[in-house]
Amino acid sequence: MIHIKDIAERPSKADIDALSRFSAATIHEAQGRRGALSSRLKPVDHRMKLCGPAFTVKSAPRDNIMLQFAIHYAEPGDIIVVSAGEYEEAGSFGDVLANACLAKGIGGLVTDTGVRDTAILRDLGLPVFSLSVCIKGTVKETVAAVNDPIIVGGEIINPGDILVGDADGLVVVRRDEAQKVAQLSQARDDEEARYIEAYKRGTTVMEICKLDAFIKAKGVVVDI
Amino acid sequence: MIHIKDIAERPSKADIDALSRFSAATIHEAQGRRGALSSRLKPVDHRMKLCGPAFTVKSAPRDNIMLQFAIHYAEPGDIIVVSAGEYEEAGSFGDVLANACLAKGIGGLVTDTGVRDTAILRDLGLPVFSLSVCIKGTVKETVAAVNDPIIVGGEIINPGDILVGDADGLVVVRRDEAQKVAQLSQARDDEEARYIEAYKRGTTVMEICKLDAFIKAKGVVVDI
Amino acid sequence: MIHIKDIAERPSKADIDALSRFSAATIHEAQGRRGALSSRLKPVDHRMKLCGPAFTVKSAPRDNIMLQFAIHYAEPGDIIVVSAGEYEEAGSFGDVLANACLAKGIGGLVTDTGVRDTAILRDLGLPVFSLSVCIKGTVKETVAAVNDPIIVGGEIINPGDILVGDADGLVVVRRDEAQKVAQLSQARDDEEARYIEAYKRGTTVMEICKLDAFIKAKGVVVDI
Amino acid sequence: MIHIKDIAERPSKADIDALSRFSAATIHEAQGRRGALSSRLKPVDHRMKLCGPAFTVKSAPRDNIMLQFAIHYAEPGDIIVVSAGEYEEAGSFGDVLANACLAKGIGGLVTDTGVRDTAILRDLGLPVFSLSVCIKGTVKETVAAVNDPIIVGGEIINPGDILVGDADGLVVVRRDEAQKVAQLSQARDDEEARYIEAYKRGTTVMEICKLDAFIKAKGVVVDI
Amino acid sequence: MIHIKDIAERPSKADIDALSRFSAATIHEAQGRRGALSSRLKPVDHRMKLCGPAFTVKSAPRDNIMLQFAIHYAEPGDIIVVSAGEYEEAGSFGDVLANACLAKGIGGLVTDTGVRDTAILRDLGLPVFSLSVCIKGTVKETVAAVNDPIIVGGEIINPGDILVGDADGLVVVRRDEAQKVAQLSQARDDEEARYIEAYKRGTTVMEICKLDAFIKAKGVVVDI
Amino acid sequence: MIHIKDIAERPSKADIDALSRFSAATIHEAQGRRGALSSRLKPVDHRMKLCGPAFTVKSAPRDNIMLQFAIHYAEPGDIIVVSAGEYEEAGSFGDVLANACLAKGIGGLVTDTGVRDTAILRDLGLPVFSLSVCIKGTVKETVAAVNDPIIVGGEIINPGDILVGDADGLVVVRRDEAQKVAQLSQARDDEEARYIEAYKRGTTVMEICKLDAFIKAKGVVVDI
Repeated sequence: MIHIKDIAERPSKADIDALSRFSAATIHEAQGRRGALSSRLKPVDHRMKLCGPAFTVKSAPRDNIMLQFAIHYAEPGDIIVVSAGEYEEAGSFGDVLANACLAKGIGGLVTDTGVRDTAILRDLGLPVFSLSVCIKGTVKETVAAVNDPIIVGGEIINPGDILVGDADGLVVVRRDEAQKVAQLSQARDDEEARYIEAYKRGTTVMEICKLDAFIKAKGVVVDI
Repeated sequence: MIHIKDIAERPSKADIDALSRFSAATIHEAQGRRGALSSRLKPVDHRMKLCGPAFTVKSAPRDNIMLQFAIHYAEPGDIIVVSAGEYEEAGSFGDVLANACLAKGIGGLVTDTGVRDTAILRDLGLPVFSLSVCIKGTVKETVAAVNDPIIVGGEIINPGDILVGDADGLVVVRRDEAQKVAQLSQARDDEEARYIEAYKRGTTVMEICKLDAFIKAKGVVVDI
Repeated sequence: MIHIKDIAERPSKADIDALSRFSAATIHEAQGRRGALSSRLKPVDHRMKLCGPAFTVKSAPRDNIMLQFAIHYAEPGDIIVVSAGEYEEAGSFGDVLANACLAKGIGGLVTDTGVRDTAILRDLGLPVFSLSVCIKGTVKETVAAVNDPIIVGGEIINPGDILVGDADGLVVVRRDEAQKVAQLSQARDDEEARYIEAYKRGTTVMEICKLDAFIKAKGVVVDI
Repeated sequence: MIHIKDIAERPSKADIDALSRFSAATIHEAQGRRGALSSRLKPVDHRMKLCGPAFTVKSAPRDNIMLQFAIHYAEPGDIIVVSAGEYEEAGSFGDVLANACLAKGIGGLVTDTGVRDTAILRDLGLPVFSLSVCIKGTVKETVAAVNDPIIVGGEIINPGDILVGDADGLVVVRRDEAQKVAQLSQARDDEEARYIEAYKRGTTVMEICKLDAFIKAKGVVVDI
Repeated sequence: MIHIKDIAERPSKADIDALSRFSAATIHEAQGRRGALSSRLKPVDHRMKLCGPAFTVKSAPRDNIMLQFAIHYAEPGDIIVVSAGEYEEAGSFGDVLANACLAKGIGGLVTDTGVRDTAILRDLGLPVFSLSVCIKGTVKETVAAVNDPIIVGGEIINPGDILVGDADGLVVVRRDEAQKVAQLSQARDDEEARYIEAYKRGTTVMEICKLDAFIKAKGVVVDI
Repeated sequence: MIHIKDIAERPSKADIDALSRFSAATIHEAQGRRGALSSRLKPVDHRMKLCGPAFTVKSAPRDNIMLQFAIHYAEPGDIIVVSAGEYEEAGSFGDVLANACLAKGIGGLVTDTGVRDTAILRDLGLPVFSLSVCIKGTVKETVAAVNDPIIVGGEIINPGDILVGDADGLVVVRRDEAQKVAQLSQARDDEEARYIEAYKRGTTVMEICKLDAFIKAKGVVVDI
C-alpha cells in the first residue's frame, strides 16, 4: 500500500534560519564533507537560493502525479524534493504548478528530472533546482510514497532533512545535526574570512596552507 | 545525385504568427505531447526565441559547407535546421555567417552540432539553438541534400515544418497542423490562465488536479 | 621524486598582449585549427576572458594540494592550468584561493575538474574555466609535478604555452608560435571584417564562399 | 486517432535473401555510407544476426504495450523495430515475449530501450538488438502508432525497409533500393576479397590504397 | 567517529536459498517493480550469478581501504557491496583480493566503481559486478563506515538486504520481505511458464495480453 | 608541413619480451600508478593481448587515411596507435586493413575511435583495442602527422613507447623505463603470488594489509 504522509518532524525555524546564512559549499565542508548532491542538479537561474525542510516525493520517470500531491500537502517553507529516476527528457513542473507553490508559500523545488517554463520561473522567484530543462510532458499514472526516504543526486534525503541550495549546487543537512552544522559553518566562514584578510595583506599560500610541512613529509623537490 | 532544392511549400504567414504567440512547451502539449526535440538542444542565450519554417540541411559532422548553401538559398524568416550527427566538438557557425543570415533576414538557426562567437551572437540578436558551444573549426568537403526530411534532436523535421524555440527548448509543428495547433495552444493557455488565477485565489491542487479521484482509483492511503 | 619547478621560459609580454586581442576561435583557426581544448571546459561566467602563460599542475582527482603550490609559486599574469583527471564531482577551488590568486595577480585558472563559490567568483573578476561547478570538497594528499607538460581538455599543455579563453572556450598557443599566430589572427580578423562588411552590403554567400566552384566539383544539382 | 496498420508493402523474399549474405558494414558502404544506426544499439550476443522487413512501432519510454501489439500483428520473418526514446533503464522484452515471437516466426527485434532475460535470449536464438540490458519493468499505458515511419538509432525507419544486423551493429536499406544495394554489396565484397588476396601476396597498402597520389596532392613529407 | 560493524541481522539461509532460484528480473517484478539497481552495473562475465546478504561498505572514489576491511570482517556467503561514488576510472579489486574473498567463502562483490584482473576473475569463479573494468590503482587513505545503509546503482542498500544478480543486472530485496518475495517470484515464474506453454501451443499475444480491452479503452484503430 | 616519419628509436626486443609477461594492471602499478589509458578503450575480444612499440598516428575524426599510411610504414611488431578525437560513430578499421596488418606482421592496433568487422577480427587474431564498434565508414581527406607524440585515452603516447594491453585495458611504458618497469613488475607479481599463497593458507586481510595500523592511525571504531 502506498502512503502519503507528512514530514514526521520538521526542523525548527531557528535552525533553518541559522543554516540559511551559509553557502551550500560551506555547509558541506562544515559537516565533514558530507551531504553534497550531484553537481548535475542546478538552479534554473544562478541567483536562486533555497533553505528549508525536505518534503520528499518518489516518482516514476515521466510522471508528475505525486509532485501534485506534494504541492497539495506540503507546508509553507517546505522544499519539495522529487526522486524521479534521473530522467532528463521530461518537464515535470512549469508555470501553473509554480503558481500553486507560490500560493501556498512552498520554499522551493528540487527534482532529478526536468522542468519547463523557465522564463516564467525566473520571474516568479520560486527557487527551482533540476537535472534538466525540457518541454516534454509527463503522464499521471503511477503512485508512489510521499515522505519516505528517497535518493536524489546520489544522497539519501529523509523527510525533514534540510536542503540548502545556491549557484554552486545543493547540500542536505540531517535535521538533528542542523544546529551543530550551523555553528561549524559559522566557524568555517570566520576562519575563511581571516584567510581572505591574510591573503589581502600579503600572507602567502605557503604560510596559510602550511605547505612546508607537506613538502617535508612527502619529499617534494622544489626547484623554484 | 545530391539535390539542393527549396522548401516545397512554406506555411502561411498567418500560421507562423499564430504559433509565435505560444511557448514551445505549450505547443508541445497542445499537439498531444508530440514534436519536442531533445532537451540537449539549447539557445545560446535564454532570451532567444524563434518561430518559422524549417529550411532543412543534412551535413557531415565537422563540415559546414551545406550550411553555407542553406544561408544562400533560404528566404527571409526561414529557420535553418541542420542535422550534423550530434557532434559536440565542432563550431560550425559564428559571427561571419551570422551577419550573412541577418543580411538576408534569416529567422534563426537550429543545429545539432556546435556554434562559436557566442558573445557576438548574443549581441546580434539572431536566435541560435545548438547542441554545444565549441571553437573547433569545420571542413567544407562533403555534399548532402538540402530540404530533404532530416532528424534533429530525435524528431523528423520536414522542410516547411514550423520550428518554435525558447528558453525551454524546441518543438516542431507539421505545416498542415499549424492552424489547429495554434487553436489548441490558445485553448491550453486560456485554461492554464484560469488555473493560475484559481491558485492565486486559493483553490487547492487537490481540487484543480482532481487528486481525489486518483486516490480512490489507486488505493493510496493518506496519513496527513 | 616529484619536482616543483618554474616555467622554463615565459612568453614575452608583447606576445601575450598581441594574442589577447583575438577570440579563442580566431586563434584556433589562425594556427591551422589546432590547439582547441574540449568544449566541456567553460568559463564560470560567459563574460570571463583570459590570456597568459600556462603554469601547469598535475593533480589527483579530488585533491587540490598541488593547486595550492601552484598559487604560491606562480607569477603575476600566469594562468594556472590543472590536470585532475576530468573528474566532475569535486570543487577544487573557491573564494579563499581566488583571493589568494588575486593578491598575487594570477591571470586566471583553467581546470578539468570542478570549482565552487561561483557567485563570489563572478564578483571577484578572476577568470576561471572549469569542467563543472561542484560543492564537494577535496583532500590534500597526493603529490604531483608542477610545470611538467600536462593534458587538459584533450590537448598537451606545456609550461609557458599561452592559454586564451573566452565565452566559446579555450585554445592553447605554443610559446614559440605566439608572434606568428597573432599575425595570422589579425589577418583572419581583417578578412572576416571584410566579409561581414560585404554581407552587410548585400554580397551573397555564393560569392563570398565560392559555392559555385563546389557545385561544379561535386556535381550537386540545384533545383532552387 | 492512433492507427495500427500493416506494412504497406513488404520487400520480396529474393531481396531479403540477397541482402542477408552481406555484413551490415558492407551494406552500409555499398549504399554510399548511408543507413547505419547508432553504434549504441548492439546485439545481446555477438553471434546474433538478422535480416528482414521492419515492422515499426512507436512507444513511450518505459511502456511496452505497443510492442505486444507488434508481436501480435507482425508476420513471419518481420523484424520488429521499436522507437522508445533511447531510454536505458527499462527492460521492455524478455523470455515470455521472446517465446511469443518464436511461436510466430518473427525474425528479430531491434529496440532503442532495454531488454532482459538475456541468458535465455542467448539460448532461444531469437536475434535481439537493444540499447541496454536492464531488469526494470515497464508499464502498459500509452498508445502509439504501429507501422508509421520512426526514428531508431538516429535513422528514419519506414515500415518495409530492410534491417540488417550483426556483431558490428545495424543498417537500414530502403525497400526499393534493396536489389541494387545487394548488387553493390556483392561488388564490394568481391573487391575486398581481391584486396585481401593482394595483401596476402604482399602487395602494399601504398599500392592498394594509392597513397602516392595522396602524398602528392596534399604535400605530405615522408621522412621514412 | 567512523564505525565498522557487523550486519545487524542476516537473512535466513532458507530465504537466501529460496531467492537464489529466481532471476533478478523476476524478483524485481515480483516485489512490485522495486529494487532494481542501475543497468550500468554488470557482471564481469555474463555467466556470473550471486545471491546473498549485503555487507555494505562506503568508500571514497579511488580508495579501496574500506573494501579490505569488508573482506576481513564479512562472513561466508556475504555479498560485499561497495558505494564508491560511481567512479569509472579506478580498479579497486583484483586477483589478490579475489583470492582473499575465496579463502573466506565470500559470496560475491558488487561495486559502483571498477575492477581489474578480469581474466583471472573469470577463472576464479567469484561473481563480481561492477560499473567498469579499469586498471588504474587506488589509494588507501579515507575511512568510511562499514554496514551503514549505502546507495549503489540508485538504490538504498541496507546491511542484511539480499542482493541477487545475473546476466541482466542486480536487484535488492529487503531482509524482512525475502520470504514473501520468493513466493511471489515462484508465482510469477509459474505464470510465465504457463504463458510460454500457451505461446508454444499457438495462443496469441492478443489473448494472453488481453489487448482487446486496451484497444477498446484507448480507442485505437486497427487497420490490419 | 605534415611529416610522416619513423619511430626515432624502438625499444629493444628484450624489453618488449620482458614486459609482455605482465598484465597491464601490474605494469601500471609497478611504474607508480602511471600510464593507464582510459577504461573506455577495450579489446574487441577479452582474450586479446598486445605488447609492442607505439607507432603513433594523428587522425581527423571519421578519417582513416593516416591509418593506411601507418600500416604501410610500420614495422613488424609495432603497435599502431591512433588518436582520432574520441569519436565513437565511425568504423575506421576492418577486415581488409586487418589482413594488411597481418601480412606485415603488425603487432596490434589501438584507436580512440571505432572499428568494424569484429567477427572477422576475432578470428584473425590481430589484437585490436578501440573506443567503439561501429559500421559507419570514414573519409580519406585530412593529412596529419605520423610518429609525433599523440594523446590517446588521456595519456601522452610517444613513438617508441611500449603499449601493453589485455582484457582489463591498456598501459603505456616509456621506452627508457621499460627495463626497470619490467623488474618492478616481476617484483610485484612475486609479492602478489606470496599474498595469494598466504590467503590460501588462511592468513587474514588484517594481517596482510596491515589494517591494524590503519585503525589506530585513523581512529576507526570496530564493533564487530
